Amino acid sequence: METTPREEINQRINTFQKELTANDLEGAFILQNADLFYFSGTIQSSVLFIPANGEPILMVQKNLERAQLESSLNNVIQVKNKNHIAQILRDFEVNQLSTAGLEMDVLPANLYIGFRKKFPQCRWVDVSGVIRKLRMIKTDYEIEQIQKATAILHTGLTEIRHIIREGMTELEIDGYLAMIARREGHMGTLRMRGWNQEMTYAHVLAGDNGSVISYLNSAHGGSGNTPAMAQGAGFRRIKTNEPIGIDYGVAVNGYIGDQFRTYVIGELSDTLKKAHECSRNIHLLLAREAKPGVSCSHLYDLAVEMAAENGYSDFFMGYGEGQVQFIGHGIGLEIDEYPIISPRFYGILEEGMVFALEPMFVLPKEGVVGLEDDYLVTSKGLTRLTLTEQVVIHI
Amino acid sequence: METTPREEINQRINTFQKELTANDLEGAFILQNADLFYFSGTIQSSVLFIPANGEPILMVQKNLERAQLESSLNNVIQVKNKNHIAQILRDFEVNQLSTAGLEMDVLPANLYIGFRKKFPQCRWVDVSGVIRKLRMIKTDYEIEQIQKATAILHTGLTEIRHIIREGMTELEIDGYLAMIARREGHMGTLRMRGWNQEMTYAHVLAGDNGSVISYLNSAHGGSGNTPAMAQGAGFRRIKTNEPIGIDYGVAVNGYIGDQFRTYVIGELSDTLKKAHECSRNIHLLLAREAKPGVSCSHLYDLAVEMAAENGYSDFFMGYGEGQVQFIGHGIGLEIDEYPIISPRFYGILEEGMVFALEPMFVLPKEGVVGLEDDYLVTSKGLTRLTLTEQVVIHI
Repeated sequence: METTPREEINQRINTFQKELTANDLEGAFILQNADLFYFSGTIQSSVLFIPANGEPILMVQKNLERAQLESSLNNVIQVKNKNHIAQILRDFEVNQLSTAGLEMDVLPANLYIGFRKKFPQCRWVDVSGVIRKLRMIKTDYEIEQIQKATAILHTGLTEIRHIIREGMTELEIDGYLAMIARREGHMGTLRMRGWNQEMTYAHVLAGDNGSVISYLNSAHGGSGNTPAMAQGAGFRRIKTNEPIGIDYGVAVNGYIGDQFRTYVIGELSDTLKKAHECSRNIHLLLAREAKPGVSCSHLYDLAVEMAAENGYSDFFMGYGEGQVQFIGHGIGLEIDEYPIISPRFYGILEEGMVFALEPMFVLPKEGVVGLEDDYLVTSKGLTRLTLTEQVVIHI
Repeated sequence: METTPREEINQRINTFQKELTANDLEGAFILQNADLFYFSGTIQSSVLFIPANGEPILMVQKNLERAQLESSLNNVIQVKNKNHIAQILRDFEVNQLSTAGLEMDVLPANLYIGFRKKFPQCRWVDVSGVIRKLRMIKTDYEIEQIQKATAILHTGLTEIRHIIREGMTELEIDGYLAMIARREGHMGTLRMRGWNQEMTYAHVLAGDNGSVISYLNSAHGGSGNTPAMAQGAGFRRIKTNEPIGIDYGVAVNGYIGDQFRTYVIGELSDTLKKAHECSRNIHLLLAREAKPGVSCSHLYDLAVEMAAENGYSDFFMGYGEGQVQFIGHGIGLEIDEYPIISPRFYGILEEGMVFALEPMFVLPKEGVVGLEDDYLVTSKGLTRLTLTEQVVIHI
């Protein structure tokens, strides 16, 4: 099984330590699975302390043996009981913290209160923004992992073309996509950082289900088959001449690829064809314009303008209450990473960013069409990481 | 699409309001998907305020229309901006809270801090324990939903028998189980309340992979195919004469069924056969002994004693560091509900509880065997909700 290379972990820790120092923090506690994996190479139940200077300490609650195999950190220590973490920190002479960081966007209140009680003298600072910015810039190793994920996406999106037929339910197609993903090595979850945000392996949204608005922070939501989940595929059956939107996610060694394609048995209406063509043109435009130094909000504006020129302003990235204010999002260990290609994201493109670009059109009662592909920002511009050449896929 | 009946919601709210009053709380804010669904019938992005007296207020951030369709609550109100929640509460004259509840086991620190800032005079109390105890007792409606889930489990566990063959990878089998689950209506996630706990649709653990310890709070863990997920199926290929442990979860209308069966191509070793027989005997013993009033820790002790009598103490519910101290767990909207059949859970069986009983044996390098079935506690004792009669399933 592939573990994160030692030099990767060292580099990540070093960069984070510089940020800790710049922010006058003596260290930070890392607990959440995605962050823990990023900085240690393992998600075995642990508390990771990263001091601003010196070696990190991985305190493992369960399972020590695997944590030692998976993590290249030098200090991997078994936690024996509730009070043992304080003891370990005393042993490393880091118990007198006065300012330290926590992942306060995801850490549950009770754990936060626990830290406050254990270190009553300490001022706690939210380092989730710092971590998300760090994780935003991908190394070659990370890009390779995302490419493995996009290769599986391509396999699935190609294979499913031969499976879809009239009368099948969205859920059947979703099931096949799940089967292919797992068979090819999808790790089985698509992590999202956002509170209460959850994800199935795929969204399969046929016809009007593509225009059902949901709680999800996404242009398309879908009915699902219960209000308890309220997104994605349901028991609706596939018909001819309607868009079948498939949003597919796969994670390999933690890293996510994310792609959307529109399928159709027969033909799309002229309106949908034109909207789809507009999505394609936004991709082509942004692929020309996007390069290091260009602001995310500028890219968003360009996309919105093109949608408006084509008369689709009201349906771009959803309609009505369902309209979302972004056309792309970073991908990595989580599906909702930075950068966000949005007017509200104050950042410029930098080399090493990887994002999913998804200019989508949602037409009430008709459905969702568009293209989503993953791009790497290089010094020269965008490199596409997704492999599927077809745009509208005819069954 | 099926929505939660109004009388269900009303009953849940009423019981919770009694608890709020008994705990001297003026109300509680509910935000987490499973709790939100339980008390409102929707997971559309919302903040639910339940006062100790009077009508709850569902404040919807996204999407109002679906929230109104899905929830039978009377006050379903659109939140327009960040400050609007305070305004809505003022309109309902509940802004001067002095003591109120939050789900502090799951609510992120930043949201908790946000509540403290918005209501500086308020003392906040963790109501997660109260909610979990309430949700522990299932109504007839909830039991019906769990039965729909166990029907799908039975379909999957029966169908997979004809699919498994020598040389397949665990991941292929896992993929088929995902496909069947979704086809039959699994909602696509298995919610867990525990911090950092995550779940794939199934665990498929063949031979020695069944004895790989993981971070997961479970007797069996499995390697997975990456340290980034570190549980469940991997690329290991199925061999003859080894146990193929399948732990399968499915959720219908939010409610989870959870079952484990051991498959084998050929024959299990005598040790594994005997361990499996012991798991079956623990089921039979507990089905005789368990009834309202019996303590969970007593049931745990009975199981441990029987495992010891058979010489399997060291391998019961894992081995070494992987050994867990429970033999069953409540199921409902989450897979880690109360009651926990554990020496550390101070509670007695009550009518309406539903739990998965999973006396498992994990033999180092050999694998995992056992039986997991779901039971309802009735006035007369246990009623099995899972449908599969076969114990060891020969391919």
